[in-house]
Amino acid sequence: MRNFHNRKEDLVSEALDGLIAASGGRLVRFARESHARVVLRSDWDKSKVAVVSGGGSGHEPSHAGLVGKGLLTAAVCGEVFASPSVDAVLSTIVAVTGPMGCLLVVKNYTGDRLNFGLAAEKAKALGLDVEMVIVADDVAIPDAPQPRGVAGTVFIHKIAGHMSEAGNSLGEIVEAVETAKAGLTTIGVARDTCTVPGSPKHERIRPDEVEIGLGIHGEAGVELARPTSSSELMASLAVRLEPHLEPDASYAVLFNNLGGLSGLECSVLVSDLVKSNLAARMRYLAGPAGVMTALDMPGFSISFLKLTPEIETILQSPTACPALPPFQLVGKVVVVAAPAIAEATRPVPSSDDRVRRVVEIVVETCIAMQSDIDALDAKVGDGDTGSTFATAARAVRKSLDDLPFAEGAALLSTLSDIKRKAMGGSSGVLFAILLAKSAEAYRENGDWVQALSAGLGAMQKYGGAALGDRTMVDALRPALDRLAAGSGLKSAAAAAREGSDATAKLLRANAGRSAYLEARSLEGINDPGAEAVARIFEALAGDVNSRAL
Amino acid sequence: MRNFHNRKEDLVSEALDGLIAASGGRLVRFARESHARVVLRSDWDKSKVAVVSGGGSGHEPSHAGLVGKGLLTAAVCGEVFASPSVDAVLSTIVAVTGPMGCLLVVKNYTGDRLNFGLAAEKAKALGLDVEMVIVADDVAIPDAPQPRGVAGTVFIHKIAGHMSEAGNSLGEIVEAVETAKAGLTTIGVARDTCTVPGSPKHERIRPDEVEIGLGIHGEAGVELARPTSSSELMASLAVRLEPHLEPDASYAVLFNNLGGLSGLECSVLVSDLVKSNLAARMRYLAGPAGVMTALDMPGFSISFLKLTPEIETILQSPTACPALPPFQLVGKVVVVAAPAIAEATRPVPSSDDRVRRVVEIVVETCIAMQSDIDALDAKVGDGDTGSTFATAARAVRKSLDDLPFAEGAALLSTLSDIKRKAMGGSSGVLFAILLAKSAEAYRENGDWVQALSAGLGAMQKYGGAALGDRTMVDALRPALDRLAAGSGLKSAAAAAREGSDATAKLLRANAGRSAYLEARSLEGINDPGAEAVARIFEALAGDVNSRAL
Repeated sequence: MRNFHNRKEDLVSEALDGLIAASGGRLVRFARESHARVVLRSDWDKSKVAVVSGGGSGHEPSHAGLVGKGLLTAAVCGEVFASPSVDAVLSTIVAVTGPMGCLLVVKNYTGDRLNFGLAAEKAKALGLDVEMVIVADDVAIPDAPQPRGVAGTVFIHKIAGHMSEAGNSLGEIVEAVETAKAGLTTIGVARDTCTVPGSPKHERIRPDEVEIGLGIHGEAGVELARPTSSSELMASLAVRLEPHLEPDASYAVLFNNLGGLSGLECSVLVSDLVKSNLAARMRYLAGPAGVMTALDMPGFSISFLKLTPEIETILQSPTACPALPPFQLVGKVVVVAAPAIAEATRPVPSSDDRVRRVVEIVVETCIAMQSDIDALDAKVGDGDTGSTFATAARAVRKSLDDLPFAEGAALLSTLSDIKRKAMGGSSGVLFAILLAKSAEAYRENGDWVQALSAGLGAMQKYGGAALGDRTMVDALRPALDRLAAGSGLKSAAAAAREGSDATAKLLRANAGRSAYLEARSLEGINDPGAEAVARIFEALAGDVNSRAL
Repeated sequence: MRNFHNRKEDLVSEALDGLIAASGGRLVRFARESHARVVLRSDWDKSKVAVVSGGGSGHEPSHAGLVGKGLLTAAVCGEVFASPSVDAVLSTIVAVTGPMGCLLVVKNYTGDRLNFGLAAEKAKALGLDVEMVIVADDVAIPDAPQPRGVAGTVFIHKIAGHMSEAGNSLGEIVEAVETAKAGLTTIGVARDTCTVPGSPKHERIRPDEVEIGLGIHGEAGVELARPTSSSELMASLAVRLEPHLEPDASYAVLFNNLGGLSGLECSVLVSDLVKSNLAARMRYLAGPAGVMTALDMPGFSISFLKLTPEIETILQSPTACPALPPFQLVGKVVVVAAPAIAEATRPVPSSDDRVRRVVEIVVETCIAMQSDIDALDAKVGDGDTGSTFATAARAVRKSLDDLPFAEGAALLSTLSDIKRKAMGGSSGVLFAILLAKSAEAYRENGDWVQALSAGLGAMQKYGGAALGDRTMVDALRPALDRLAAGSGLKSAAAAAREGSDATAKLLRANAGRSAYLEARSLEGINDPGAEAVARIFEALAGDVNSRAL
């Protein structure tokens, strides 16, 4: 499905219905019979100057999404990238214009200018007070006789909408927006064209190219560039904008996503912009946000509006339209120091022969079983479980003489750090969690079994594995339960063995890498983690010192 | 340029800098030396429960864009689609946690769960009160043991952030969000994968396909579908969501753009959604908006959260983050009747032989010169100017006996309507504007020349052509000026001829279709429109009755 829609002829009407349904009652539309796709403020009483805009669709949220208190009174929507009819504009003017009159805000495209223009003349013939302002903010084409109207138009919407709300007269609003227009400048860039619903995509821009100075309807840009970085691109845009900006003036900037650019890239570009040589003149910034889009075009535009004290006040005032992002003061990036995390004080080595003996047996067992466990894992995973265990074991062996065997909490905490660093990845973190939580629990209750049991609980909580999920939990949980019940190491080892063997009958792994395998790949194979645990317990059970622990 | 960025290793850091610069002072970040990409509220004083979230980048504005009063306290950002480190999470917890404690909101991905989990355990060992909630709202995979955490997570951010602001305890917040999670459900759809900066795009989905139930990292969906319409697609999503919704409950819905879908399509899909059989249960809707994106993925997700009176209050409260769209009441689409525009009352035919004679001469001249003017236009335009004039003339000829020749304003107004309908397109509207404005002016001053001059002014204003732009204005303006000066029709015809001939020396057309041609294509060719005007004036000047007018 190249685009999401129903009948192509209903595309714009249905989109407006979606917008209205989600507007919280802010919007209404003309009845379908009128054939005019017009969205209006539901609370409009004609007591102020009406501000009407519109044009072809495909620029959402413009223009219907900008209808609301403090912005537009109504939007007249054409088909995708096509001007609305004279009749649609005229009936809108008639619907919204009271004694204060009506301002039409029109982007500089011939079709819009003519259709809104004729409607304005016809409305005047009906006795209505109508003025039209044509926005031509695109500076892509040097000395263009008719610069296009693009995203900067939104500034004019904001100024006119605010002044209307404040009770200004039509003449005052026209004067203000005509003055503002003189300080309004936009440039656009994209790395691909847009997809017009129902039409084949025009493949024009190659993967290594960007077009600078393209319009909001997929019109070709004036320059094909191959910047090697976003900051290089931004610098070239600054060169184009610079001649249109006054050296000592301050500006409000709109960073407009043309539709299909990722938020991540938009923010990188904003970072480039605030580091560019235009930065000193940028006082406010709105966006990144898609405000005047070109359907799904992966590109952006930057609009600069020269500030006056009046315009500053206007831009900061709220509107009823969430689609218009707020203009916020551009600021330096303030950094704070990350808190220093007290490094676990290097443990003081201490002796406890029996505890050391247990650790040594675990270490030796892990190293000895490496190839067996790897072989098992090769059948149901990626063949490295044995190596991962052995690597961690070797790291512990290297540290044996430095470990605080006489202090359980410190020992577990130190082992947690060693495991995490040596094992890496998810399994390193899982064992680190088990041992960190065990350390905390041992500190509280001084009991090895309770401590390890709490640690296993944390590992299960964060790792997400339950009993029967075909993981090492299936051997470790029953073994610890036996120890907790006082049944001793031989019984625990038997439980671990039983648990490990039972995993060969579990035909669905609910956690870990084996979760992606089908039942027949798992049948008859012990889970490598559970098998490792079983072998460790069997080794401990075979050792007199451990049994006595 | 496949993506807009600088050094790939700086991508996330620079994006965060852009976000912070545009935040109006709301955000700060950890110093770069910490290697932790962490964004924090600038106004945080640890007096309330800290709410920390994060994960891999690529979901902008999540999570850093959701940091602010009433939402997150801090966001810990990993590389694109990769979990942040344990140390980054831990130092964030330490930085923001005061006596009220800290809640970690984690999307259900193994890496996030483990890294946030180990950091939580280490923070607890440092004496901090930390809890973690794992969000797993994706219902794409039936009976998934570990459903993914996707856009619904934003609801949890909102609830936790609001309750923190309201002074609730960590325990109260955990209880509330755990309860809310049980009523949280999301499904996602896309018609293409996303582009990971610096990596080749994974071309997996064909143009006629959509994937239902895919994740927010470009993971494959659970079903490849070929819906023939957006409403059919929405119906299939409703079937998947239905089992997770209670029949009599009310829900708040988030319509989330996954990044690259056009606003137009999003609104069509919202329209489909509010017409689906889930509609009756939808009480609030936020969006369409990109809140939890997957870079530039052209797709969307729909999240349902079961409402309680408390949650209703929470969702409606404002936050400091413009990236979170407001939850608005879902409403019926209210329509208003478009105003009936009084059809110009059918003019009463009336006689004025001299006026009729002028009209007839214009008509006959236009018809007679059709092929000449077409031939001229074939050299500099699309070869139809003569035909367009002639078509309009024939339409006027057909109406000659119905025209109100004795009433100037009515005549001009009627001719305006005839021209517009007969000529169609831009030129029809241009002539309609000229004649409509002339009618209005004639009504005011009863003077043909002043009226037509005002009409030409309107045509220039809306059409954008100035003198010397190589259009019919170059003949018509000097001719009307001569008439206004009382120099008579012969002088006017001479001026029109002079003006038309001068256009052959204008090597740049600033308006109209010839604006796209190069100088050498224009040299020596009269502008077809100007030539037509000259011929009309010459014909009128040759006629005794017209001269006497």
